[in-house]
Amino acid sequence: MSGDEETRRARAALARTVEPGDEVVGRWLARLGPVEVWQALRADGPPPEGMSADRWAGLRSRARHAEPGRDLERIVRLGGRFVCPGDREWPSQLDDLGVAAPVGLWVRGACSLRFVSLRSVALVGARACTDYGAHVAAELGTSLAERGWTVVSGAAFGVDAAAHRGALAVGGSTVAVLACGVDVPYPAAHAELLGSIVGGGLLVAELPPGDRPTRSRFVQRNRVIAALTRGTVVVEAARRSGSLITARQAGRLGRHLMAVPGPVTSGLSAGTHRLIREEATLVADAAAVIELVGDMGELACAPDEPAVPRDLLSRPAGEVLDALPADSAVAVEEVARGACTSPAAALARLRELNTLGFVERVGELWRVSRAGPRHADEPRARAHAGA
Amino acid sequence: MSGDEETRRARAALARTVEPGDEVVGRWLARLGPVEVWQALRADGPPPEGMSADRWAGLRSRARHAEPGRDLERIVRLGGRFVCPGDREWPSQLDDLGVAAPVGLWVRGACSLRFVSLRSVALVGARACTDYGAHVAAELGTSLAERGWTVVSGAAFGVDAAAHRGALAVGGSTVAVLACGVDVPYPAAHAELLGSIVGGGLLVAELPPGDRPTRSRFVQRNRVIAALTRGTVVVEAARRSGSLITARQAGRLGRHLMAVPGPVTSGLSAGTHRLIREEATLVADAAAVIELVGDMGELACAPDEPAVPRDLLSRPAGEVLDALPADSAVAVEEVARGACTSPAAALARLRELNTLGFVERVGELWRVSRAGPRHADEPRARAHAGA
Repeated sequence: MSGDEETRRARAALARTVEPGDEVVGRWLARLGPVEVWQALRADGPPPEGMSADRWAGLRSRARHAEPGRDLERIVRLGGRFVCPGDREWPSQLDDLGVAAPVGLWVRGACSLRFVSLRSVALVGARACTDYGAHVAAELGTSLAERGWTVVSGAAFGVDAAAHRGALAVGGSTVAVLACGVDVPYPAAHAELLGSIVGGGLLVAELPPGDRPTRSRFVQRNRVIAALTRGTVVVEAARRSGSLITARQAGRLGRHLMAVPGPVTSGLSAGTHRLIREEATLVADAAAVIELVGDMGELACAPDEPAVPRDLLSRPAGEVLDALPADSAVAVEEVARGACTSPAAALARLRELNTLGFVERVGELWRVSRAGPRHADEPRARAHAGA
Repeated sequence: MSGDEETRRARAALARTVEPGDEVVGRWLARLGPVEVWQALRADGPPPEGMSADRWAGLRSRARHAEPGRDLERIVRLGGRFVCPGDREWPSQLDDLGVAAPVGLWVRGACSLRFVSLRSVALVGARACTDYGAHVAAELGTSLAERGWTVVSGAAFGVDAAAHRGALAVGGSTVAVLACGVDVPYPAAHAELLGSIVGGGLLVAELPPGDRPTRSRFVQRNRVIAALTRGTVVVEAARRSGSLITARQAGRLGRHLMAVPGPVTSGLSAGTHRLIREEATLVADAAAVIELVGDMGELACAPDEPAVPRDLLSRPAGEVLDALPADSAVAVEEVARGACTSPAAALARLRELNTLGFVERVGELWRVSRAGPRHADEPRARAHAGA
């Protein structure tokens, strides 16, 4: 087994053993690395600094039952993968979580998590939202997706589901970060929605396949949503709502914190109004959201300009981009023929390229972004010249 | 004619001659005083600095037709008065308008303009408001009035009317600042509302009796509303609404600028959302408004503590306060007997005293503020001792 493979197996085993966001283990990992931590958990040694004996016993009991090889096979059978820090697909913004960063992420869906999350916004809010909240979440989901932004949420009832569905309705890119395994249909009534998200976007989880959600896993899941995105929009929230936790975490991580106002007569807007009074920016539509998140520090890019240089694209994405004619829109099938791949794979690459600002959708067809000839051709030419 | 009387007549004549907010005349007045300016307008001299010949001709033509004596008699026949800078009833916060301050105010109603405006808040917004806007304006009007705050607005359709009615519904104090004479029923459909405001509060105008509203007079009226109050709350406003002018003036004058959010799907909340993004504080209820305006600089007072010392009260107000028993609530008629005045006059003084924090209403009865024995008795005793 290569060193890389050993590290990946150790991370998979830790994902099965350690609860998300465990900062004691996180500090230990930062000091020793995953392979040594995993070995220590399987050996008969003392607990790391700051960990109670009970917790240590619990972790070691879990470690005895972990089967990382089986989990890694299982995610492959699901058509997914286990993405680790250092991987090409790892979204490096998660490193902002420091010792609370995930040990790895189990991912299902055809797009690159790193690419689709580069220009992403979280939409979160009440499960028991009002018709108004569902309407606004769906509208925002749709409008953000139409402008090439990825909609990230938690696949819960209410605001979450409306946001995902709004993005899916226009063939946009959407990511559901789960508090359970990516093969667990939770909530059960959302089995079909989760299937659609695998088809048109990504399911992402810290928990390995088969794991069930718990209250604390929901709370920890929220930190991943906050860190993955450039900003979090709270659509509706009661005065003491869980979505406010995601929201404030986004603020602490230096992400944009936004909230949608509503009628002052609605208890489900009391939380967003409070956020606006205290720290959030009021946003009323997708344009306001993009105005805010579109110019964030290292991720900044001019409007309509690609978010990454052409030569940072994966080879399959580059081939799909090359397959698009310079001046007309074409169907996915034609792109697939040009790039010598399947239509499904071509569509996944087109969605990534859309998020990255290279291509845009015209009804059912795709074309190079109109801004492309002006902004993107030059770096593209340079990239080819330098290759 | 005494000097005071001559000044008052000159101001009344200027109110008939000069448009509200004329800063050229304002600078001239600041230099020469009302009597000299009025004499110059009646003489055959050159225009003041900064005034066009056309404007000068217009003002002199108006001056020839002014009849200040008749106007002053007319306001008395209406049961009102002409309040001038330096008068006991003049609200000195209007001096913040500088050279744009009114030359005087025509007032109808039993309360003291100075006293009721000490703890006052402006509620403004769209004429064509939604049911939501009308509901929120009425609720705010009622709740502010119940807590002893005066509701100031412009008697227009929509938000204005709902705010006044909300205050009147609980016998609270309300002030309508008009863009026409205080005897002009504008809008005509509000004749009854204007009558109720005279009965339970005040009608106030820069324009002398009989004058009609114009577009620029509405705009200028807004500056008086902004300056008179400790803060302005915009309830509903389209993106380009006149109420936003009042609002921004309030901000420039150092008053609190507040706005009520609403559904992002409503065009009539677009203006308030924009204000909140740019400079206004989001407020969802009267408590939030009072939290903000309750502690403003020179006007500050601890909660439940009188806004002015006992010895600054007018003699009639002091007599009414003395007529209240220390430990029980009594009817207006009993207060009137105790203070040796009419029930109508006693009620007007009780409303002032309520705004000033000395007394409170208990259903149909009145009593000394519960905070009174603790906070107010000591200064009252000192004032008597010092007299």
